[in-house]
Amino acid sequence: MTRHVTAYDIENMSKIYRLNFINSCTGYKSANLIGTRSRDGVSNLAIFNSFVHLGSNPPLLGFILRPLTVPRHTYQNFKETGHFTVNHVTKSMIADAHHTSASYENGISEFSKTALTEAYLDDFHAPYVQESPIKIGCSYKNEYHIEENGTLLIVGAIEHIYFDEKMQGEDGWLQLDKGNIVAVNGLDGYAETKLSARFHYARPDQETTSFE
Amino acid sequence: MTRHVTAYDIENMSKIYRLNFINSCTGYKSANLIGTRSRDGVSNLAIFNSFVHLGSNPPLLGFILRPLTVPRHTYQNFKETGHFTVNHVTKSMIADAHHTSASYENGISEFSKTALTEAYLDDFHAPYVQESPIKIGCSYKNEYHIEENGTLLIVGAIEHIYFDEKMQGEDGWLQLDKGNIVAVNGLDGYAETKLSARFHYARPDQETTSFE
Repeated sequence: MTRHVTAYDIENMSKIYRLNFINSCTGYKSANLIGTRSRDGVSNLAIFNSFVHLGSNPPLLGFILRPLTVPRHTYQNFKETGHFTVNHVTKSMIADAHHTSASYENGISEFSKTALTEAYLDDFHAPYVQESPIKIGCSYKNEYHIEENGTLLIVGAIEHIYFDEKMQGEDGWLQLDKGNIVAVNGLDGYAETKLSARFHYARPDQETTSFE
Repeated sequence: MTRHVTAYDIENMSKIYRLNFINSCTGYKSANLIGTRSRDGVSNLAIFNSFVHLGSNPPLLGFILRPLTVPRHTYQNFKETGHFTVNHVTKSMIADAHHTSASYENGISEFSKTALTEAYLDDFHAPYVQESPIKIGCSYKNEYHIEENGTLLIVGAIEHIYFDEKMQGEDGWLQLDKGNIVAVNGLDGYAETKLSARFHYARPDQETTSFE
């Protein structure tokens, strides 16, 4: 049976019910751990589910930051140092990845509270997650203030990508399930995935065919 | 084996290789069909993989539009009429959903070129996709020009949500795999999903536990 709710109904939901409902209604998201380090050398790791692809040339990504509801350490660190990393979450990492959403005090690294391993590669200031099959080193480029609700769109430039080469096809594409990478369902659900099909470029009035 | 590529390497990749690589490197995305209708009554349907949650109260979502590489009909229609719909893609819909990325001329509806069914609900101007287990009716709120590469972040307000009630838990959360909803891998890969675990709210120095 189909249920219909309106903006009025949503406004009248309890806070947690509405958070669960609206966060899950737009579909699967990527599960990404952002690694940063303060100028003083304190590392930070935090889970985000709001990454978008912004462009390939130059390679840019974006994510949404909620200044009032997430720990500000991530933001402070990349504003201070100019760098952050984006690390993918695999099925065996989901409990630790989710635990990084706990509000630890400043000065305490989430790496010290989980089994995730801090890795420093090629003199990059921010820490990577050793266990992640895709690790991206980014420089902070810009931020856009979303006036409708005070969130920020952060824009980062991709400087380094480290990935398990068994995931990559001849045409550059990374097949995420080959790295056991999960998708996020709402705020707190993690789903395993399996490729159903990959399609060729779609053209008008021609059948859309899949690879193989 | 881990491969490492730098911004310099990415700049020197061929265009299609770079598109495949960079679009897939940030992880799974949601598969959403945007439905619009011109003032003249011509409907349009187009696949997007760039939706983000912006906020629950008020309920807002965002997506990235690339003015030069996607058909402009979607943008023209919601700017003209103020409304668009967001419809989820299930496993049985993936070939038709991907086909909406073909460049049809203005005046030709993608609904007429696929097996997807146009539905008008509660006097909303934009068409929904009948087959989608979650359908969202939005009003256009704002757009932000991303100066780094000319893309746009479109902000929409959620006015209506229609969903299969068997997907919803008591706390409001929608379990997406109960609707056979897929996740997107890059530009053209579609993955089926299965919930691995859902976790309780994480607190410092307490074990992160899953539901059930």
